[in-house]
Amino acid sequence: MAKKKHHLNSIVTEPESEDFYHQPGTIPGTIIVDANAPPPKIILIDYSPTEAISKEVETPEDCIPYLDTESVSWVDVRGLGSEDILQRLGQVFELHPLVLEDIVNVPERPKVEDYEDQLVIIARMVMPKKKSHGFHSEQVSLVLGKHYLLTVQEEPKRDCFEAVRSRIFKNKGIICKNGPDYLAYALMDAIIDGFFPVLEKYGERIEDLEDEVISQPTPKTLKKIYKVKRELLQLRRAIWPQRNLLHTLIQDENEMISHEVRVYLRDCYDHAVQVIDMLETYRELASGLMDVYLSAVSNRMNEIMKLLTVISAIFIPLTFIAGVYGMNFNTEKSPYNMPELNWYWGYPACLAVMAVIAGILLYIFWRKGWLENSSRLNR
Amino acid sequence: MAKKKHHLNSIVTEPESEDFYHQPGTIPGTIIVDANAPPPKIILIDYSPTEAISKEVETPEDCIPYLDTESVSWVDVRGLGSEDILQRLGQVFELHPLVLEDIVNVPERPKVEDYEDQLVIIARMVMPKKKSHGFHSEQVSLVLGKHYLLTVQEEPKRDCFEAVRSRIFKNKGIICKNGPDYLAYALMDAIIDGFFPVLEKYGERIEDLEDEVISQPTPKTLKKIYKVKRELLQLRRAIWPQRNLLHTLIQDENEMISHEVRVYLRDCYDHAVQVIDMLETYRELASGLMDVYLSAVSNRMNEIMKLLTVISAIFIPLTFIAGVYGMNFNTEKSPYNMPELNWYWGYPACLAVMAVIAGILLYIFWRKGWLENSSRLNR
Amino acid sequence: MAKKKHHLNSIVTEPESEDFYHQPGTIPGTIIVDANAPPPKIILIDYSPTEAISKEVETPEDCIPYLDTESVSWVDVRGLGSEDILQRLGQVFELHPLVLEDIVNVPERPKVEDYEDQLVIIARMVMPKKKSHGFHSEQVSLVLGKHYLLTVQEEPKRDCFEAVRSRIFKNKGIICKNGPDYLAYALMDAIIDGFFPVLEKYGERIEDLEDEVISQPTPKTLKKIYKVKRELLQLRRAIWPQRNLLHTLIQDENEMISHEVRVYLRDCYDHAVQVIDMLETYRELASGLMDVYLSAVSNRMNEIMKLLTVISAIFIPLTFIAGVYGMNFNTEKSPYNMPELNWYWGYPACLAVMAVIAGILLYIFWRKGWLENSSRLNR
Amino acid sequence: MAKKKHHLNSIVTEPESEDFYHQPGTIPGTIIVDANAPPPKIILIDYSPTEAISKEVETPEDCIPYLDTESVSWVDVRGLGSEDILQRLGQVFELHPLVLEDIVNVPERPKVEDYEDQLVIIARMVMPKKKSHGFHSEQVSLVLGKHYLLTVQEEPKRDCFEAVRSRIFKNKGIICKNGPDYLAYALMDAIIDGFFPVLEKYGERIEDLEDEVISQPTPKTLKKIYKVKRELLQLRRAIWPQRNLLHTLIQDENEMISHEVRVYLRDCYDHAVQVIDMLETYRELASGLMDVYLSAVSNRMNEIMKLLTVISAIFIPLTFIAGVYGMNFNTEKSPYNMPELNWYWGYPACLAVMAVIAGILLYIFWRKGWLENSSRLNR
Amino acid sequence: MAKKKHHLNSIVTEPESEDFYHQPGTIPGTIIVDANAPPPKIILIDYSPTEAISKEVETPEDCIPYLDTESVSWVDVRGLGSEDILQRLGQVFELHPLVLEDIVNVPERPKVEDYEDQLVIIARMVMPKKKSHGFHSEQVSLVLGKHYLLTVQEEPKRDCFEAVRSRIFKNKGIICKNGPDYLAYALMDAIIDGFFPVLEKYGERIEDLEDEVISQPTPKTLKKIYKVKRELLQLRRAIWPQRNLLHTLIQDENEMISHEVRVYLRDCYDHAVQVIDMLETYRELASGLMDVYLSAVSNRMNEIMKLLTVISAIFIPLTFIAGVYGMNFNTEKSPYNMPELNWYWGYPACLAVMAVIAGILLYIFWRKGWLENSSRLNR
Repeated sequence: MAKKKHHLNSIVTEPESEDFYHQPGTIPGTIIVDANAPPPKIILIDYSPTEAISKEVETPEDCIPYLDTESVSWVDVRGLGSEDILQRLGQVFELHPLVLEDIVNVPERPKVEDYEDQLVIIARMVMPKKKSHGFHSEQVSLVLGKHYLLTVQEEPKRDCFEAVRSRIFKNKGIICKNGPDYLAYALMDAIIDGFFPVLEKYGERIEDLEDEVISQPTPKTLKKIYKVKRELLQLRRAIWPQRNLLHTLIQDENEMISHEVRVYLRDCYDHAVQVIDMLETYRELASGLMDVYLSAVSNRMNEIMKLLTVISAIFIPLTFIAGVYGMNFNTEKSPYNMPELNWYWGYPACLAVMAVIAGILLYIFWRKGWLENSSRLNR
Repeated sequence: MAKKKHHLNSIVTEPESEDFYHQPGTIPGTIIVDANAPPPKIILIDYSPTEAISKEVETPEDCIPYLDTESVSWVDVRGLGSEDILQRLGQVFELHPLVLEDIVNVPERPKVEDYEDQLVIIARMVMPKKKSHGFHSEQVSLVLGKHYLLTVQEEPKRDCFEAVRSRIFKNKGIICKNGPDYLAYALMDAIIDGFFPVLEKYGERIEDLEDEVISQPTPKTLKKIYKVKRELLQLRRAIWPQRNLLHTLIQDENEMISHEVRVYLRDCYDHAVQVIDMLETYRELASGLMDVYLSAVSNRMNEIMKLLTVISAIFIPLTFIAGVYGMNFNTEKSPYNMPELNWYWGYPACLAVMAVIAGILLYIFWRKGWLENSSRLNR
Repeated sequence: MAKKKHHLNSIVTEPESEDFYHQPGTIPGTIIVDANAPPPKIILIDYSPTEAISKEVETPEDCIPYLDTESVSWVDVRGLGSEDILQRLGQVFELHPLVLEDIVNVPERPKVEDYEDQLVIIARMVMPKKKSHGFHSEQVSLVLGKHYLLTVQEEPKRDCFEAVRSRIFKNKGIICKNGPDYLAYALMDAIIDGFFPVLEKYGERIEDLEDEVISQPTPKTLKKIYKVKRELLQLRRAIWPQRNLLHTLIQDENEMISHEVRVYLRDCYDHAVQVIDMLETYRELASGLMDVYLSAVSNRMNEIMKLLTVISAIFIPLTFIAGVYGMNFNTEKSPYNMPELNWYWGYPACLAVMAVIAGILLYIFWRKGWLENSSRLNR
Repeated sequence: MAKKKHHLNSIVTEPESEDFYHQPGTIPGTIIVDANAPPPKIILIDYSPTEAISKEVETPEDCIPYLDTESVSWVDVRGLGSEDILQRLGQVFELHPLVLEDIVNVPERPKVEDYEDQLVIIARMVMPKKKSHGFHSEQVSLVLGKHYLLTVQEEPKRDCFEAVRSRIFKNKGIICKNGPDYLAYALMDAIIDGFFPVLEKYGERIEDLEDEVISQPTPKTLKKIYKVKRELLQLRRAIWPQRNLLHTLIQDENEMISHEVRVYLRDCYDHAVQVIDMLETYRELASGLMDVYLSAVSNRMNEIMKLLTVISAIFIPLTFIAGVYGMNFNTEKSPYNMPELNWYWGYPACLAVMAVIAGILLYIFWRKGWLENSSRLNR
Repeated sequence: MAKKKHHLNSIVTEPESEDFYHQPGTIPGTIIVDANAPPPKIILIDYSPTEAISKEVETPEDCIPYLDTESVSWVDVRGLGSEDILQRLGQVFELHPLVLEDIVNVPERPKVEDYEDQLVIIARMVMPKKKSHGFHSEQVSLVLGKHYLLTVQEEPKRDCFEAVRSRIFKNKGIICKNGPDYLAYALMDAIIDGFFPVLEKYGERIEDLEDEVISQPTPKTLKKIYKVKRELLQLRRAIWPQRNLLHTLIQDENEMISHEVRVYLRDCYDHAVQVIDMLETYRELASGLMDVYLSAVSNRMNEIMKLLTVISAIFIPLTFIAGVYGMNFNTEKSPYNMPELNWYWGYPACLAVMAVIAGILLYIFWRKGWLENSSRLNR
């Protein structure tokens, strides 16, 4: 378990990969409550064109008086840590067992399902991490009823709905004049728009990596590129089904959603397509970076080899000449045995020959352009 | 044959690749019984909302009294080792010859076929291997009749239906209140959910490989990545047709399956799509790992070359200098012939020059950052 | 912020990546005016088959007298720098808040939207940069009404509509005899045709890179290829949605666009498909260049290694021989101790042996074809 | 021509690539008879539920008496070497000129065409080569009439229909009780099933290559992988259109094919899909092998470089030390000139220092794990 | 301009890339005549089932008497060098301005357009170059009227319609018995069949490259592979739209084309699909070749490194030994100072030790299989 925990914090781990399935063959509708999950907090916001109230309630049953009034009731449940409360939630809102399972047994793939008088949307919200790279991902389930909207979030901490709440209480825009379907749209819109800041962070990281990969590629760069690719893959798994979900909402002639809201959903759908566009572009860029990295590594190898070759090519012949005149042939036995050793200008001539050879080789390498590159190797 | 057997146990072999086809041109419906296959065990489970019995029967004919009663009869045949029993099974359940062929001549591609009063589902069940990596894959055929469900498994050993059996006998959930179509759904659901533990194992292996490929890549790592890719490819071949199969079941207006069960099948279909999502993500990650591996190998090569270059660049010039002063020019013949040899400080000066050259080169390499990397090579 | 600015001028930055999203959860229809954007210039062109006038107006309201006359009024707004004017523009033209948002909050993905008596086209215009590589990209929004066409451009500087204006004033072609739908077509046609000069520039750059990558590949080449790939990716993101937009315009039975203009739009659509064709071809060529680059780098490495191997292979054995005859075995203690040193022809024989060895090795390398290649290394 | 012939036998040649097209602009329906093709052999099999005869006939006209009887006549023409006989065949069976062209001018892409009272199927049959790797591929054309089935094969040698003939004469299965449509199905089934043994061979070859590529990759391995990829590409070109062909046969409400046979065709279609599944899996595996090969080659390079670096790193410093003490500084001129040479323990100390340096370096390399790998290089 | 011309002859240039667009915003229907284009030659062929005449006419107006007669008039315009003649052509045949633009402003993407009593086909004809690799590509526009067919080719030189003309004058086949729709089919058929000889050339070049890439890969090989890939990409851009064009012709219920000709077009469509099949196969093979090339280059690097390592590994230790005995330790000062120098068998023993070491190393390398490969390096 300790090892697991370690993995959970390692950069390459998908936080969702733990506990994401129940035992094959269990009863459909079985809900599994993670013992470590935070206990649910239930916040009820009830608003009409004229007024809006917000209060935290203790039990799901406390919401009942609000649900069938004409005013819009937004019941926001945050945290999945209590089986009891979740089961009672299911009873209060008359949720199909499969719906409750989808809401609780996160992560579920984003989708929209149509139950007689309820429209169930499973969505996924992403937020940039504040202090580090990467993003925080959380499931949000929306159950749209006639006069209410139930939302269930995984964690009580921050979400991306603050601006919507503010619009309700400040009575800004047309949100208070519309029903829960507009509220559902407004939340979906906030969820989709929440992808942009995350993507922007990746855009910046890819730019930084572009600089790094060309200027000074190290194995760490490789690791970072791989991590970006992996995280973009996760983002992709989150956004594609949401695009399909929005498409279904627009196409299906579901009476839960009014015609006017459908126009707004079309706009939201356009944003989802734009997110996908950017995402795919970033993925292609990240893949391209991997190629550039490989090429850059090969280039550096070339530079290293050039240096080795230049040094070897110059000194190996010179060392050979020095070796020749280090031989001990007996000059006294024959005039042909290394007469150079006894010449008056022997040593200077030998050094001169060496210098000439080195000069010629250096000139050749300079002509090939090897000398400049070698010196600019690490820049 | 011995060689074949060896292959069967080798890591890279697909166990299914043997005997998977019959002679081209044979009569359609010909069944081929593998002599080594385990003999069939027939287990009959008969249940109604009020009671449930289970017994092992000897012959297919023993099931006849149960088939047309109102209670649901689940005939579970495990093992394909007897042509006689399989033929009699075909007669008892009035199977079309092509259906019997599909059931017996494993492996068949998963599919659903609609025969007048029978719905035939060919599915594939996977289970993680207990002691090693990899997974165990087995064909399960389901024949759904009006009051019965016939299932045929390849092997009598473990399957992923235990939890379903337990639900029947403990009368948990709504399984006993429904007909054989719900039972068929429950089994399909167990089959699809059975992919999750297998996938989770691959998720963990990919994580381990990520660590390995960056910290210490060896040819073994490469082999493991390739194996993971290969096995994911096999999983893919198993899950895609099952997703299509479920889609067909939901879309087709077949009266064998009640409307209520169709709702549950939609849930099961969602799980299949989720499996595919994860699978494709893992496949992309595994492909990315191959690139990372290649890059890591290139990086190590760079490090090795750097070490070689540093050592050569430092010692080759020094050796050349030593070679020069090892030459035997006759110092007595001329004052220009290696006068250094006779200097008072000749040797110390020579050593000092060498030390200076070495120092300068070391400084250059340190500036290039080659010295640190070389020492951290294997970490 | 300074850093941001720096990025804006760096070659690898997408200029659009800044400020392209508003806070998730804000009211739909909120418009965000960039403080640095140029203030809008409003140019009104009003023409009929007989006459055409053009004037720059101060406020959107100045256009009102022209809008409902039979003559065609083209209101061209250039610059997005004043929220006040844009809001009043929205009121004058009765724009849906979402339309105004799309027009102002650039960049928006190109699309066509159908509002009761208006057809809104969000398009993207590209122009080659005059002094450097790359292209300039700008959003153009077209709002087609019964008697008017409103166009909104991001910047007051050059656009690609000059030729259209000239056709209006010179009364060339059939533009003056047609309504605002033909004008909208003429502008769309100019936008699509504007991709060709940009593409041609990339065609030429790819050709240049082809030469460079084969003759003398450097890391700079790699950077250029990557940059071309990146910019083609941006072009692709601009043209694909415009192709879809045109397809929608042709298919939809929208009464804003007459049948005759639809024939012209078909021609425009063909050009968009041609642009995509060329673009995809260029993208494939650029990807191919990356492979060629990698191979070329490997080839150069081979050449470098060959040179090193040739020099080492020739001189290392010779140096060894010289080393042998530099040994100090005492020739006086034994006739077997290096008798060669005292031979009459010892030294010449030794040199001859060395020459023969070098000759043989050179011959071998010449036969392998290594000598020629090494010398042609940098060409 | 001789060169062509050589190519025909080379491993990388596609045998079909010669003479596969006629001059552009020739009359449609022109048939081109290859002078080297074997002369046609015509075998007539006529069967009814009660009896079956087989005889070889000389001319197409000899078949006329059988064609319109109630019994099923299977006219099997093997060999395309006589224009006269093929033209007369066309007249006897009233073939459309384009059909005759498709039959004779092999290779044609597999397809099905519907002529008023004839159904024409162009299929492609593959058989594993008996003695070597690879497969034999041959076009089979089927013309289904009311009471007859005409089949035309490229060559008189072996086909994959022997089992079907045996079923006719032994009156096994239901073939004799059915019409020519069932016969056509039986042949198509034999053709599709004929892909399995070929694929199995490739499965085994890929397994062998997997072993080879990891244990001892040579350029030959590369050649083999490329060859496998190429041949799988050819198989793919043969099977995909046949899958489409079968799909058309099942979907189209053609009255030539009875409802019962359509059920069997569905089974045959499933097999075709299974073939494609396997084929695509093998193709992916073969592509993966190419990557593994590249990595394996890089690994070996690493091993070679390690060996070179170890040897160089150990001996270059030692040789330098030996060089130092081979210098000829005059020890008599100064006490600082190489006093070590005159020390009592000078030589042993020098050797000891060398041993210590070598030992330290060996220890470092052992710690890096380079020594073990180098020795296991070729395993 | 001179530079442009140079590019036009360079191997990597797409000849079409010049002048392929007009200024964005110009009037639709504007035709641009290239000053260097050859002047048009107009050839009129008029035929009926009984007779056929052919004559070259001076002006388009000369064709008018023939156009409305029952006989089929084929007006073949070759060359696009005169704006005057092309404009008059447009008037004579009452061409829509956009059609004339498509015909003249080459290259246009192949397509079919339906104008009230004309069917306009823009096609692209390819022919293998006679003396070099590569192919010649030319636009052919077909305008099908009730009794005439107008064709416009880019250049007066060779086309692939000779065989069709010969069929008309020799009254072969059914061409003279049919109307201009059959003629249009016959030309399209000739155009599509014209791709086969071009493809065959590429098939042969790929085979040659396969040999070259495995036996002796050089940077030139790389260039050739890239060129083949590039040209196949151009072919692909030419054939895909023509396949779509044919599909449209078959599907659309256009009354210009009789049912009988539609059957023939189906055959032509099959050929187009076959061309695409081959093309895609060749493209995959060419891509595979790039991988093989990279691997082959890596292999050669391995061989070079092996040679270097073998030579270094053998001679570096020997040179070290020689260096040791070249040291000048004073043997007179101590019995421990290099006593070997004074041994009776010192020198022979030293040589023997060297030989033993070299032998052991050679044996090790021979066992590793490095010695054979090194010698077979260039084969």
